[in-house]
Amino acid sequence: MQMSLEKVSVRGLHTMTDLTLQEIDWILAEAEAFSEGMSWRPLNQLFVANIFFEPSTRTKMSFEVAERKLGLEILSFDGETSSVQKGETLYDTAKTLESIGANALVIRHPQNEYYEEIKSKLEIPVINAGDGCGQHPTQSLLDLLTIKQEFGTFQGLRVVICGDLRHSRVARSNAEILTRLGANVMISGPKEWMEGFGSLYRYISMDTAAEKSDVMMLLRIQNERHQQNNALTNEFYHSRFGLTVEREARMQKHAIIMHPAPVNRGVEIASELVESRRSRIFKQMQNGVYVRMAVLKRALEQNQ
Amino acid sequence: MQMSLEKVSVRGLHTMTDLTLQEIDWILAEAEAFSEGMSWRPLNQLFVANIFFEPSTRTKMSFEVAERKLGLEILSFDGETSSVQKGETLYDTAKTLESIGANALVIRHPQNEYYEEIKSKLEIPVINAGDGCGQHPTQSLLDLLTIKQEFGTFQGLRVVICGDLRHSRVARSNAEILTRLGANVMISGPKEWMEGFGSLYRYISMDTAAEKSDVMMLLRIQNERHQQNNALTNEFYHSRFGLTVEREARMQKHAIIMHPAPVNRGVEIASELVESRRSRIFKQMQNGVYVRMAVLKRALEQNQ
Amino acid sequence: MQMSLEKVSVRGLHTMTDLTLQEIDWILAEAEAFSEGMSWRPLNQLFVANIFFEPSTRTKMSFEVAERKLGLEILSFDGETSSVQKGETLYDTAKTLESIGANALVIRHPQNEYYEEIKSKLEIPVINAGDGCGQHPTQSLLDLLTIKQEFGTFQGLRVVICGDLRHSRVARSNAEILTRLGANVMISGPKEWMEGFGSLYRYISMDTAAEKSDVMMLLRIQNERHQQNNALTNEFYHSRFGLTVEREARMQKHAIIMHPAPVNRGVEIASELVESRRSRIFKQMQNGVYVRMAVLKRALEQNQ
Repeated sequence: MQMSLEKVSVRGLHTMTDLTLQEIDWILAEAEAFSEGMSWRPLNQLFVANIFFEPSTRTKMSFEVAERKLGLEILSFDGETSSVQKGETLYDTAKTLESIGANALVIRHPQNEYYEEIKSKLEIPVINAGDGCGQHPTQSLLDLLTIKQEFGTFQGLRVVICGDLRHSRVARSNAEILTRLGANVMISGPKEWMEGFGSLYRYISMDTAAEKSDVMMLLRIQNERHQQNNALTNEFYHSRFGLTVEREARMQKHAIIMHPAPVNRGVEIASELVESRRSRIFKQMQNGVYVRMAVLKRALEQNQ
Repeated sequence: MQMSLEKVSVRGLHTMTDLTLQEIDWILAEAEAFSEGMSWRPLNQLFVANIFFEPSTRTKMSFEVAERKLGLEILSFDGETSSVQKGETLYDTAKTLESIGANALVIRHPQNEYYEEIKSKLEIPVINAGDGCGQHPTQSLLDLLTIKQEFGTFQGLRVVICGDLRHSRVARSNAEILTRLGANVMISGPKEWMEGFGSLYRYISMDTAAEKSDVMMLLRIQNERHQQNNALTNEFYHSRFGLTVEREARMQKHAIIMHPAPVNRGVEIASELVESRRSRIFKQMQNGVYVRMAVLKRALEQNQ
Repeated sequence: MQMSLEKVSVRGLHTMTDLTLQEIDWILAEAEAFSEGMSWRPLNQLFVANIFFEPSTRTKMSFEVAERKLGLEILSFDGETSSVQKGETLYDTAKTLESIGANALVIRHPQNEYYEEIKSKLEIPVINAGDGCGQHPTQSLLDLLTIKQEFGTFQGLRVVICGDLRHSRVARSNAEILTRLGANVMISGPKEWMEGFGSLYRYISMDTAAEKSDVMMLLRIQNERHQQNNALTNEFYHSRFGLTVEREARMQKHAIIMHPAPVNRGVEIASELVESRRSRIFKQMQNGVYVRMAVLKRALEQNQ
């Protein structure tokens, strides 16, 4: 590891708000190019450490595929079973991985904005794979890519974000970035889950959402984050706030369904709709690999 | 991932009964070629996901070595600590891995015939690495390879399968396939563990088994699957149903000993016999890598 | 795997005492060459199995980086969640990994001198990554490399080993090897933690240690190995036995600080000293990769 006296600007990715619209455009264009077969590999052997302090097999796997498609070496650090148990700080863990050779860190951590305490003290980029109830910027980017592939633009699109907004890492950042990009963002779901969103975005019923939206962006119910005695049964939730077969039948011809997965079948969405013609759920997963390739390339190519 | 409208036949491996004798011959010949140094690598970067819902370090490691010898990229999905805890179905997990780029899935799962609910809905092959108390076809294939290397044929061979047949994943499929291949299969062990076998195969005592067999195929006592209050002590089991030093001394000169490992030393087999001249136990492990290479090549070469 | 009838001498690494001073010199020279960009890769695909029966993310990661820099294939065997739970012996686990293709084993195990029961029965080298309260030879080697890079020699250097000597894997082997290499080794810390060292090395106070030493070699307090009712509070320990800012200010101009990490900030060492100009803590981590590359090359190059 070479330490320069003048610190070069390190192109990590912490939040969507750090990115200009031009940067977002550039990342989406790169991701699209990867989806069409573009290949990029660093000139030297580079290492990425995936540091996950919360279980998230899906996100981790997606980063792993992206990393291997770029020919990167992966260090997999499981924060739940590691020497972090010995009381090590996140900074010391990160610095250790930098010292042994990591050229970038991909981190998921339960603490909101964990990256604030480390980003300025490391010479290598940090890519945020989810911070507490904060952000999950590569998820936002894959959502944007999926919408852009479909509609070519964000301007004037009616996007309804439905469900468990309060516990979602992507609801807030998606709502903000889509608004910045010119979309008309609305919200739907149990009113008590709209905390922090109600004053900013128009609330509509699921029936209206189904009829009026271009994009139904369903969220996963984070059962693991809710209180035990959640009064809503799955059946009640589905009939009142879920995308039922009946509601789907009233959607506009061109409208699409999105969900970050894993899906609670029969709750947020009827099981038979998961792979229906409107669903972009598995397309989102494919796009996840491509946006992560783009974000990693952006972070690492200054090493060339 | 390219989806073709007409679904190509996907060459996974679910059970031994799916395979014709010609296909088995072909897999064994390929495995033998790999053992002699044959090399095969796909033209493009291909990904295999190893999805293990039960701990099985040995099988997983063997697949990993096979995969790396073929130059494949490995995605390692640990079903015990993953988002499956979030209630995801096996199908959704499998579909997710297909979506992010897996070209084949290797799955171990506690449910019998788990592959039935997913195989027709995926575009990529599923290789069964063990289903519940069902099958473990690559274990059967490595057993066949080991016998074939020794005797050149299965015709007329006396193979005694000894021990915990009822809980074994390979007892039934080995008995069936060896019979189809012309061997004379017999069984031995505690009679209450012969459930489902007694009417199909001749039962003989361990003393007779040792004297008459060409192959003593010992099984592991699955202590973890038995009731707590198992009345059999290890010493009693060994003297009555185990391969003791005394019994081994009465075996035919050319006869061999097999065991799928891990071995309970001093229970199924005397500790000093594990690496004796008749033992093919570590040879079986070596062969495990070669048959898995052959099965993976068969599954993946249609991607070329 | 080819088994030769005459067993070739297998160049594993079990303890520092196995190594002659010439061998140590050679390993340090190789490690130094790797740190300067030397590249070495085996001619064939070789596999190393990392077998960790105790959690040690840091050591494991360092070995992994070393292995990948050498282009080796890694088998990662987690002894805590594996089929060892099924009662398998260490020897059978090691033999299994050899059978499926491992060309070397890197083992951490809670039992002192675990390698004695396996080393003569395997055809492949065993590299000790820590045995119980025994040794951790690659840690010793990285400490030696760090000192040698600084001073060019060990002759006459005053090295004080401070802290939890009794529970340390490296205190004893470092004290012995530094003495063999001509250094003047002293000890400091709570007297009840000097058990087994007091009669061999001169005991000095931390104040004297700070003033007189060329190298302050701090050890980690192994809280996880101490009794629950440890009477020492962190604050008391730091003021009495830790490297405080005040003590550091009285160190000789050229003197350096070492620590195997992870650091208990504010206990063994003041937090602000961890990355101070004297600290070689992160340099040690970098050197860990290079000495492990040298040790692995030494173990594997006879396979060429």
